[in-house]
Amino acid sequence: MRSVQDHLAAVLGAVGPVAPLDVVLADAVGCILATDIAVELDVPQAPVAARDGYAVAAYDTADAGPTSTRTLPVAHDVLVGSPAALRLAPGQAVRIASGAPLPQGADAVVPVEETDRGAARVALQRPAVPGQHVRLPGSDARAGDVVLAAGVRLGARQLALAATLGRGRIRVHPTPRVVIVSVGDDLVEPGSPRREGRVYEADGHALETAVRDAGASARRVGIVSDDRATLREALEDQLVRADLILTTGGLSEYAHDTVKDVLAPLGTVRFDHVAMTPGHRHGFGTVAGLGGDGAVPIFALQGHPVAAQVSFEVFVRPALRAMAGHADLFRPSVTAEATVGWASPPGLRQFVPALVVGSPDDGYEVTPVGDPGVPSVTALSRANALAVVGEQDTAVRPGQRVHCLVLEG
Amino acid sequence: MRSVQDHLAAVLGAVGPVAPLDVVLADAVGCILATDIAVELDVPQAPVAARDGYAVAAYDTADAGPTSTRTLPVAHDVLVGSPAALRLAPGQAVRIASGAPLPQGADAVVPVEETDRGAARVALQRPAVPGQHVRLPGSDARAGDVVLAAGVRLGARQLALAATLGRGRIRVHPTPRVVIVSVGDDLVEPGSPRREGRVYEADGHALETAVRDAGASARRVGIVSDDRATLREALEDQLVRADLILTTGGLSEYAHDTVKDVLAPLGTVRFDHVAMTPGHRHGFGTVAGLGGDGAVPIFALQGHPVAAQVSFEVFVRPALRAMAGHADLFRPSVTAEATVGWASPPGLRQFVPALVVGSPDDGYEVTPVGDPGVPSVTALSRANALAVVGEQDTAVRPGQRVHCLVLEG
Repeated sequence: MRSVQDHLAAVLGAVGPVAPLDVVLADAVGCILATDIAVELDVPQAPVAARDGYAVAAYDTADAGPTSTRTLPVAHDVLVGSPAALRLAPGQAVRIASGAPLPQGADAVVPVEETDRGAARVALQRPAVPGQHVRLPGSDARAGDVVLAAGVRLGARQLALAATLGRGRIRVHPTPRVVIVSVGDDLVEPGSPRREGRVYEADGHALETAVRDAGASARRVGIVSDDRATLREALEDQLVRADLILTTGGLSEYAHDTVKDVLAPLGTVRFDHVAMTPGHRHGFGTVAGLGGDGAVPIFALQGHPVAAQVSFEVFVRPALRAMAGHADLFRPSVTAEATVGWASPPGLRQFVPALVVGSPDDGYEVTPVGDPGVPSVTALSRANALAVVGEQDTAVRPGQRVHCLVLEG
Repeated sequence: MRSVQDHLAAVLGAVGPVAPLDVVLADAVGCILATDIAVELDVPQAPVAARDGYAVAAYDTADAGPTSTRTLPVAHDVLVGSPAALRLAPGQAVRIASGAPLPQGADAVVPVEETDRGAARVALQRPAVPGQHVRLPGSDARAGDVVLAAGVRLGARQLALAATLGRGRIRVHPTPRVVIVSVGDDLVEPGSPRREGRVYEADGHALETAVRDAGASARRVGIVSDDRATLREALEDQLVRADLILTTGGLSEYAHDTVKDVLAPLGTVRFDHVAMTPGHRHGFGTVAGLGGDGAVPIFALQGHPVAAQVSFEVFVRPALRAMAGHADLFRPSVTAEATVGWASPPGLRQFVPALVVGSPDDGYEVTPVGDPGVPSVTALSRANALAVVGEQDTAVRPGQRVHCLVLEG
């Protein structure tokens, strides 16, 4: 048997970030930036107004005060789209919009709220201070500054900056494309009539969601027969569309389970018993595309939905994060005090669906959902964490501190 | 001026969950369940094997031991897809797959790892305990049990359960469809040549991402002219596709800014100065679809990308969460100690892009990114939080505890 740690190390050793690609802004959403973005020109390029109001020369307003309103003629307007900064004649004011370039000769902006909003003449009630409500060239970023560094995740605020700088395309690690194949003649689609001995296909639907939650893109192929030729053809068809393939089911020792046989000639896939529960049977390796354009990593997971979900969390999710270029591969975890005790099989790392409650200040408590010895989809659906019990432990005592992977938030 | 609190209350008072709809599993991803899901039949329905191995009658194995191996003839196999449970003859064993129904007469499963894996005869080294590795009917859920309650978010683990139960369609609050319109003749698409006086369109790209991060679906219309007829037509065209409309730009007091004029006859939209910085100009209300099929909420946000993003976080995101049916509308927040001091305008709630560092155990520290008085896209792109300074405060002192909205994680 292979340890969880060894299997995870093998998985992470075999995958790396998807090769960088220039994509349009809309496709960069959520991706990791592959190269630094530097600004080409000072931001702002010229002095601009920070508020809607009137651009003035501060010395023209020196004698304004509550008892001696200073009135200036308004020469014209400067809007954000105005092509070039105009000149402010001495003793005059110019209506200006927030973000518009300051006219030459102006050195301050009086916010519209502090004036009588005049169109032909404007009355000011206090002197302007030179530089007030003016953004100086380069005050936000100087030409050459790296404002978005390689490795950053491109969320809304980072895209706002890239767009503001005029970048229409960005070099990113593209979102990994994951193809999900559910293997087994015993499977039927949810929504079809109940038939004795048939099992509703759950893994594909659940993994599609889990893959998307991990920030990758998912393509669920659906149910594929465990007939060798059919399964082989289905996998070969998908190789061109996939950065990673996930199969579920077809891993038992029984003759009708064919995943091992089919994968063996397609690439270098290793099948292991991993010292964990649930989900000890694991296939992992790479399969070669027909065009010979590199090897595609593949995970063969057990079909039981709890085994498949736990294996996804422990091995597949970190691999997807690595392929997407994230530095931080793992879910957050907390140490929580067990409210009850339970048994854990010796020699296996046990992952128990559990509810973690508490707060950073008061600490956390963890309670298994359902019977820790029995993998239950119902229990997993109510859990917000996986309690992790080490290989050496044969039991968790009430009050014992347990490491928990937090699945939500 | 209207307070942030009053404006938020008005917004949340005007929106509610999108009407429930039956959708296929793939469309239910991330949605809030609108009705309880109960199981129709016990799960499992009949006793099933919890491990791959051999189904036996425990009393046939009583004399097995390390020194006296007990050997049983293997009658046949029971696989997961087997249509009906067969009968186990006394003194025999049956090969069984994990998840398969237990033959009548069997009351225990011996895992394959504890046997010699025999095909015709199997050797056991210790007595089986009645019930071992057997999942009893209803042990996971009993007929009638509500296993997924209305209000639950349908993530991977909840979809696994719904699919396992055979549900092909689920009644959910559908994902709100948000249409994003960027208003202004001064805007050009990122990637197009730089032209003096033109501004690259950033809000649409950033809000598209922010909307998706909030769990809603986003449709970016792109740049629309502030010509009144063009803008009105663009908005009317989008009404049929939208559960919510976001516009940015066109809100200043200058004549070329037409959003107010265009929205006024379309519905009941109110324009306010909200006591906050950045982004004090706000339009919010509803516009009527041409078909008369209900009113669509609309936000008119300022065009400065920092104002737009902050307004999205403070007002739009909670509204979208409410429309999606979430009970929890707000980002997590922490109280953090300011590492430096800064000024805050009296009478306004100030939102400052900031970096929060620390841990639950050691507490948190907050540092503004850039100059808190100057809205900067560069600063916002590096922030992971918004520090919130109350309307009464005119300054934050170093060491003061500040409320912070956490934007990431």
